[in-house]
Amino acid sequence: YPSKPRLQSKAVLNGVLSRAKVLTIDTMNPTVKKVEYAVRGPIVLRAVELERELSEGMKKPFSEVIKANIGDAHAMGQQPITFFRQVLALCSYPELLNDSTFPEDAKSRARRILQSCGGNSMGSYTASQGIDSVRQDVARYIERRDGGVPCDPDDIYLTTGASDGIVTMLKLLVCGEGATRTGVMISIPQYPLYSAALAELGAVQINYYLNEEKCWSMDISELQRALDEARRHCNPRALCVINPGNPTGQVQSRQCIEDVIRFAANERLLLMADEVYQDNVYAEGCQFHSFKKVLFEMGPEYSDTVELVSFHSTSKCYMGECGFRGGYMEIINMDDEVKAQLTKLVSVRLCPPVPGQALMDLVVNPPQPGEPSHDNFIKERTATLSALAEKAKLTEQVLNTIQGISCNPVQGAMYSFPRITIPEKAIQEAMEPDMFYCMKMLEETGICLVPGSGFGQTDGTYHFRMTILPPTDKLTILLNKVKEFHQKFTQQYS
Amino acid sequence: YPSKPRLQSKAVLNGVLSRAKVLTIDTMNPTVKKVEYAVRGPIVLRAVELERELSEGMKKPFSEVIKANIGDAHAMGQQPITFFRQVLALCSYPELLNDSTFPEDAKSRARRILQSCGGNSMGSYTASQGIDSVRQDVARYIERRDGGVPCDPDDIYLTTGASDGIVTMLKLLVCGEGATRTGVMISIPQYPLYSAALAELGAVQINYYLNEEKCWSMDISELQRALDEARRHCNPRALCVINPGNPTGQVQSRQCIEDVIRFAANERLLLMADEVYQDNVYAEGCQFHSFKKVLFEMGPEYSDTVELVSFHSTSKCYMGECGFRGGYMEIINMDDEVKAQLTKLVSVRLCPPVPGQALMDLVVNPPQPGEPSHDNFIKERTATLSALAEKAKLTEQVLNTIQGISCNPVQGAMYSFPRITIPEKAIQEAMEPDMFYCMKMLEETGICLVPGSGFGQTDGTYHFRMTILPPTDKLTILLNKVKEFHQKFTQQYS
Ligand SMILES: Cc1ncc(COP(=O)(O)O)c(C=O)c1O
Ligand SMILES: Cc1ncc(COP(=O)(O)O)c(C=O)c1O
Repeated sequence: YPSKPRLQSKAVLNGVLSRAKVLTIDTMNPTVKKVEYAVRGPIVLRAVELERELSEGMKKPFSEVIKANIGDAHAMGQQPITFFRQVLALCSYPELLNDSTFPEDAKSRARRILQSCGGNSMGSYTASQGIDSVRQDVARYIERRDGGVPCDPDDIYLTTGASDGIVTMLKLLVCGEGATRTGVMISIPQYPLYSAALAELGAVQINYYLNEEKCWSMDISELQRALDEARRHCNPRALCVINPGNPTGQVQSRQCIEDVIRFAANERLLLMADEVYQDNVYAEGCQFHSFKKVLFEMGPEYSDTVELVSFHSTSKCYMGECGFRGGYMEIINMDDEVKAQLTKLVSVRLCPPVPGQALMDLVVNPPQPGEPSHDNFIKERTATLSALAEKAKLTEQVLNTIQGISCNPVQGAMYSFPRITIPEKAIQEAMEPDMFYCMKMLEETGICLVPGSGFGQTDGTYHFRMTILPPTDKLTILLNKVKEFHQKFTQQYS
Repeated sequence: YPSKPRLQSKAVLNGVLSRAKVLTIDTMNPTVKKVEYAVRGPIVLRAVELERELSEGMKKPFSEVIKANIGDAHAMGQQPITFFRQVLALCSYPELLNDSTFPEDAKSRARRILQSCGGNSMGSYTASQGIDSVRQDVARYIERRDGGVPCDPDDIYLTTGASDGIVTMLKLLVCGEGATRTGVMISIPQYPLYSAALAELGAVQINYYLNEEKCWSMDISELQRALDEARRHCNPRALCVINPGNPTGQVQSRQCIEDVIRFAANERLLLMADEVYQDNVYAEGCQFHSFKKVLFEMGPEYSDTVELVSFHSTSKCYMGECGFRGGYMEIINMDDEVKAQLTKLVSVRLCPPVPGQALMDLVVNPPQPGEPSHDNFIKERTATLSALAEKAKLTEQVLNTIQGISCNPVQGAMYSFPRITIPEKAIQEAMEPDMFYCMKMLEETGICLVPGSGFGQTDGTYHFRMTILPPTDKLTILLNKVKEFHQKFTQQYS
């Protein structure tokens, strides 16, 4: 190494200079700096701190922090589906296939998954698009769900949670500069993954507002307004819809979905349908309609042309298996060359986690009537979904008894997004009134919510998002604490 | 919906226009198009096709496709570590904690992991940075590995495989335009995740060549040459090193690592050390030296200033658990504000897969002497690593008996990267001579390799990458087939 002495002397010469950091806030990726993600923002950080302080014996006006900020079902006590976990245990440790206490249907499901894995091990990389047999099962699930509309397993991509699929699709779409830069329409309020991904990709976020007066439905005239304005400064190319909605808990009607599809077709927008809450529908008269089914019912003028991507996940519905990071997307009417590029792109990350793929397989192919685990599966699923339906109703009812709070019905998903009246004095005191409100709520009651500003809201209105996930008894206490806090807060600032 | 009639008439007017796809190869993200990933490229696609053709009874000159293209240990028959899989089964289905056939140490490990999960379930989201207790275990592992150099769990980020960590770090680094655009130095040959990520991020790839004559070691003078040239057209900010090396199988000496650190310090480059093969060292006289340990041995002038990020994974070493997508990165001397940005960025994807986090925990905290599973763990680990060492030697030896092929010792990792002589006539016939060679090899022998061009190589030289993972008997057959093929190919084109 003849260059060594030279380098050493250089080190001395550059002594001071070389101590400055390479990577600083001023020299890092500027698009990353623009990313915001309120679901895990300052309130949540403070909640974690408070939990630590409590555990260290510090005195607080509450004995427990209740995290109603994130749709994390198991963390709030929801139990996993026994059958799913049995199969996962069998796949993890195939010795258990000889254990007679496991039901036969769990074993046969595990064998089938393992046979699709290289070396019969979940430790092997899979095809980047996901395991073939899982994609086939997903396709059959979609066909059943959509009353027979055909689904090609080649159009299914397994993902690392729905998050991964959504970011990947947005990534494919982004191009152009200045007035030709890709714009993407997202609902306001939105799930902040969308704004975060668009910021990171440097795409233009086009806000369309959900109609709070009409139970957070979509208005075509509002879509048109947002689109027309956006066309003046960017190139709108995609329209994202979350149905059932996060944070707003609405379930869009079939008519509304048809109108949205027609709008997207007319305006040449690719549709991204975030349908991770497809089993979470509670309100009477509401029903989940997949964008794909409606698209195909509209006939070939639409079903042969409109580009649609739909996302699903193992994280929500009745399973709530967030930690496994399972999910899929179905791509419909995508250009073949683009599809090849998508396949190439996902191959760089090698493959989605195999336990998550296995879990997705179980979700789309649960125990069938006659199989030993069927009855228990139905019992567990029903119990979870009924409890959620009950809590959705309870939440809406109690919140609407509070003066200064008004809450739309929680038709689906896992959240209420009530509108709150914040007294003028508090608004003047705080930079972000709903952040101020939620932070005070946390400090005084231990309840962790996300301020509406984290999702976006009409200027001058204030909201918070609260999950309906705590167990019923805890939720009742929580709602009463919210009531008490709101009354006190209102008094204090009046 | 008063706007509906208007939209319908517009649909008729725009009939033809609305049928053109929104997303085409010409209107998609141009940086995605530039991405290449040879490990899963055309040869692999053809191999999958051949497998299908064989299974359909088509006649081929071989009876089986042997995939020596990817470091996927379990797919090639390597057995998982029993203890790891027992704990994963226990965590997946905690009912098994009552099963007396599971060893107590597996149970206590599972209990500890579950206690760190929300609701005691792997189905909960974890902190975005990863489970606290796992990060603590990682920190203690690093301290043990590096002879006591301190490690702060706050500097550990769990990841979705090492791939995820590497892409995230590169993403943080990218900024500027034109001559100030971030440049990143990568070795040639390289693991193509790096070039793919840089292409996607639009960063400048700066190639430095490993010295094939000196067993793929790093030359400071070559680093300097590459850097000086790059400074004319971009802003070089980081230097990536893979040690032990992929695809080249070398293990860098302590001296070399020290020189590289000094170079990075003098030239103000952030160091990215890809150390996913840290247990895969086979050659006598070779040893794994972590960049962190060497950095701290160089004294505070370096250890207080040089920004270093080190990556590890559950996918390689003796565990080979690729499908679980576990990994971590340690960030050293990173600016606090940047670290906060990193934490925010990873929170958008919610968290790494929990089974992968659990597995990473077991890797850094395996059974201890005295615990019931210890002896078997040591036995299994030793068996796997000895077999790999034996196969590394075998591969080098047989390849070097072939006229026209010369292979550096496979000191570590899981690959040989022999240089092959391709006859002039074949070079003239083919666009990419080594792709042509590997494709012919696949068609004639069923052996699936990756051409050197997929990793980069000095102009006018040709290589292929072959894993050492097939079981010894199969590897012997495979090497003999390579020999036969090479002789035939050479004759045919001479
Ligand atoms: C609307 C919506 N989409 C996507 C996601 C991402 O979920 P995951 O990545 O866990 O599948 C969430 C999570 O809360 C969500 O609410
Ligand atoms: C050098 C190197 N780095 C990173 C990776 C990524 O591995 P994973 O994402 O499975 O941890 C690999 C995989 O082969 C590799 O060889």
